[in-house]
Amino acid sequence: MRNIKLVLEYDGTDYGGWQKQAAGGRRTIQGTVEAALKQILGEDVRVTGSGRTDAGVHAEGQAANFRTRSGLPAAVIGKAINAVLPRDIVVRRVSVVGDDFHARFRARAKIYRYRILNQPQPSVFQRRFVHFVRCRLDAGLMKKEARCLLGRHDFKSFQAADKKERGSIRKMSRIRIKRDGGLITIEIEGDGFLRGMARAIAGTLIDIGRGKLPPGSMKKILLARNRRWAGPAAPAKGLCLVRVKYR
Amino acid sequence: MRNIKLVLEYDGTDYGGWQKQAAGGRRTIQGTVEAALKQILGEDVRVTGSGRTDAGVHAEGQAANFRTRSGLPAAVIGKAINAVLPRDIVVRRVSVVGDDFHARFRARAKIYRYRILNQPQPSVFQRRFVHFVRCRLDAGLMKKEARCLLGRHDFKSFQAADKKERGSIRKMSRIRIKRDGGLITIEIEGDGFLRGMARAIAGTLIDIGRGKLPPGSMKKILLARNRRWAGPAAPAKGLCLVRVKYR
Repeated sequence: MRNIKLVLEYDGTDYGGWQKQAAGGRRTIQGTVEAALKQILGEDVRVTGSGRTDAGVHAEGQAANFRTRSGLPAAVIGKAINAVLPRDIVVRRVSVVGDDFHARFRARAKIYRYRILNQPQPSVFQRRFVHFVRCRLDAGLMKKEARCLLGRHDFKSFQAADKKERGSIRKMSRIRIKRDGGLITIEIEGDGFLRGMARAIAGTLIDIGRGKLPPGSMKKILLARNRRWAGPAAPAKGLCLVRVKYR
Repeated sequence: MRNIKLVLEYDGTDYGGWQKQAAGGRRTIQGTVEAALKQILGEDVRVTGSGRTDAGVHAEGQAANFRTRSGLPAAVIGKAINAVLPRDIVVRRVSVVGDDFHARFRARAKIYRYRILNQPQPSVFQRRFVHFVRCRLDAGLMKKEARCLLGRHDFKSFQAADKKERGSIRKMSRIRIKRDGGLITIEIEGDGFLRGMARAIAGTLIDIGRGKLPPGSMKKILLARNRRWAGPAAPAKGLCLVRVKYR
């Protein structure tokens, strides 16, 4: 059995997230990729992602792996699967990896990007991939406030309330917020993200940027370790899993 | 009666082009904008575009005008219409113009942009707005070949064969072709474009870029004044009406 790693790009708009759902559920990325692989490999495979992306969230570099008996060269698998997949999912890289590679457990860091279109009018071309906010946001203040998230912290305040995960301590190694014309980009790199965490941080930063939460709020929210203190989750469409790093 | 000018942005993917169709036909940009205006002005208006864009063609700056009895301020019309329009059409500017303004007859120049994604893999994020070409195109050669189109010429070779228009002489004042990573952009400014002309030029340049047509072809095709000499029309999805200029 060979162990194959995939790097995937997808437009999550029309999917019910990464994880396969029971029969009758929505179309998912995992389910669609598994069905495409079955078509070209002629066997059932189980694709393991680096993590689940929520319904509507996009990826530029989701990582996944699967085991197969097939001897098809990686490059051939890549071409064949892209010919079979719908146009909103593209496999960007296929590689044969060591038997101990596991897309989820071996992930060392992830980079998420949240995009806000902050101008008087929405954009028809970017509408599937940005969250449109009409009222002017203070990106400088958002940047200043976000700084306290850097380092190792308990991110319980940004954890989707209904999910149980082992521990809520994560380490954020980089947070970059910049405005380029009407586009505000929040890029966060961390060793792991709790369920809903990226969107809760983005939603809180938006509330800070529009002045709904006063300066100093982010630090207080982080220390509160209570989801109710943070802002609402920002819409899924603005979020993109940019890259998963491995050792 | 006031004369109102609109500048429109649209994602043409899901429309049968600009021009309103008879009952039972496809949804069009003109028809959708007229319906939205009727909703907010309470009267039937006829919206005149600077020209018709084909089914699937996009616009960043289509211009149009209409006459109305309504005294609603331009800014109010702008907000109201964007609240009513579907998300793939946005009105970017509304202004009251002189009675002699006519979006079509007063247009002095138009800028069209054709985008080709030329890399081994398609992009899920740009897929609605670029034409994907896998085999490597020589953008430098395309640029060199396009130069002969500058100036006043008979563009009959690039005119959609089934259309009758008064004369086929047009003046191209600027053609810019550049590669930025995997993206090749062709931008053309002219005092007018024949039906299908922008896509026929793009399709011919692609054939030149991939070596299907030898260097020197563009000049010969232009002089032939025969549509059969030029390459096939490039797909609508790569084309965007960037701007319409008025005196």
